[in-house]
Amino acid sequence: MNIAVLLFDDFETLDVYGPVEVFGRLVDLYAIKFYSLNGGQIKNQHGVSVLTEKLEDINDNLQIFIIPGGIGTRKEVENKLLIDKIKEIATFSKFVLTVCTGSALLARTGLLDNKIATSNKRAFEWVITNGTNVIWNKKARWTIDDKYYTSSGVSAGIDMALGFLSDRYGIEFARRVAFEIEYNWTEDKDNDTFKVK
Amino acid sequence: MNIAVLLFDDFETLDVYGPVEVFGRLVDLYAIKFYSLNGGQIKNQHGVSVLTEKLEDINDNLQIFIIPGGIGTRKEVENKLLIDKIKEIATFSKFVLTVCTGSALLARTGLLDNKIATSNKRAFEWVITNGTNVIWNKKARWTIDDKYYTSSGVSAGIDMALGFLSDRYGIEFARRVAFEIEYNWTEDKDNDTFKVK
Repeated sequence: MNIAVLLFDDFETLDVYGPVEVFGRLVDLYAIKFYSLNGGQIKNQHGVSVLTEKLEDINDNLQIFIIPGGIGTRKEVENKLLIDKIKEIATFSKFVLTVCTGSALLARTGLLDNKIATSNKRAFEWVITNGTNVIWNKKARWTIDDKYYTSSGVSAGIDMALGFLSDRYGIEFARRVAFEIEYNWTEDKDNDTFKVK
Repeated sequence: MNIAVLLFDDFETLDVYGPVEVFGRLVDLYAIKFYSLNGGQIKNQHGVSVLTEKLEDINDNLQIFIIPGGIGTRKEVENKLLIDKIKEIATFSKFVLTVCTGSALLARTGLLDNKIATSNKRAFEWVITNGTNVIWNKKARWTIDDKYYTSSGVSAGIDMALGFLSDRYGIEFARRVAFEIEYNWTEDKDNDTFKVK
């Protein structure tokens, strides 16, 4: 399965590289590439810099589209060119996975309307303003509705990626990957330790 | 504090970007840069590519030197030029942090001789051959001896980085960072869930 990861300036580091670790190590199953609206070097506030291809170069046989969050989403939700492009790619992609405030970007496309989704628990009040018709779940570690997977904040992207593997190849397969990366996986998607009390 | 992260081909993604997330988000405290022996683009098997500076450009006022693991270490332990450079930098760096099989690289320098260290629990038998005078700890999530922090596999680098913060700024500070990245932190460094039974 081919995976396209969306990047934009000031994305959150682990939102991206958590799922990239999980999928990337399965070299026989997944091939990952990084994209941004205009291609070129994308940077974040953590000192991380990534060379990207253009979103328009994504082929419509895409299997998985990953949308991370980060402080950059506050600006990008107003970037109509980006939101339109996300909508186009998310529509033809077989699966769409958002991490953290990445669900705010996807919500802006309207594709999450009447669907269940979650987001970073500490940015929740802002995130929900980006999709008033989304059925926001404040307790989930991650959610699944139709082809859309959305996770809670940062590290939760790892739990969701493992959950995605579990849904495709069974829970023992996912547990083995969690074991290999020595990650204490929250297997229950409906119960986030970090939910707002 | 300035942080230099060592990269080499086929480094493990999360070994690097776990600690980078933890330190990177503290923008007022840490500045991170990426280095390799010869500089330039470094790639791994997960599709990740990073532009690096040369190790020789690291200034001797370095505060933190991070050495990740990954399948690439199997080759790099035989790279005398790299091991010599690691020894030089680790010697002047105020702290040295290894993740996963990164401790095999550091062990090759001799700097871990008669010091306590750990590594990836599934690569342990190979790792210990790289430092027969190291006091290897098979149960720790991470270890601290003098200025050397070494962590167990992959995700354990996040726990160690949080532990490093705890040692500098107190446990409540570290807990807040873990909370912000929604990470279920293993606070007890001496008890790795993934230890060999």
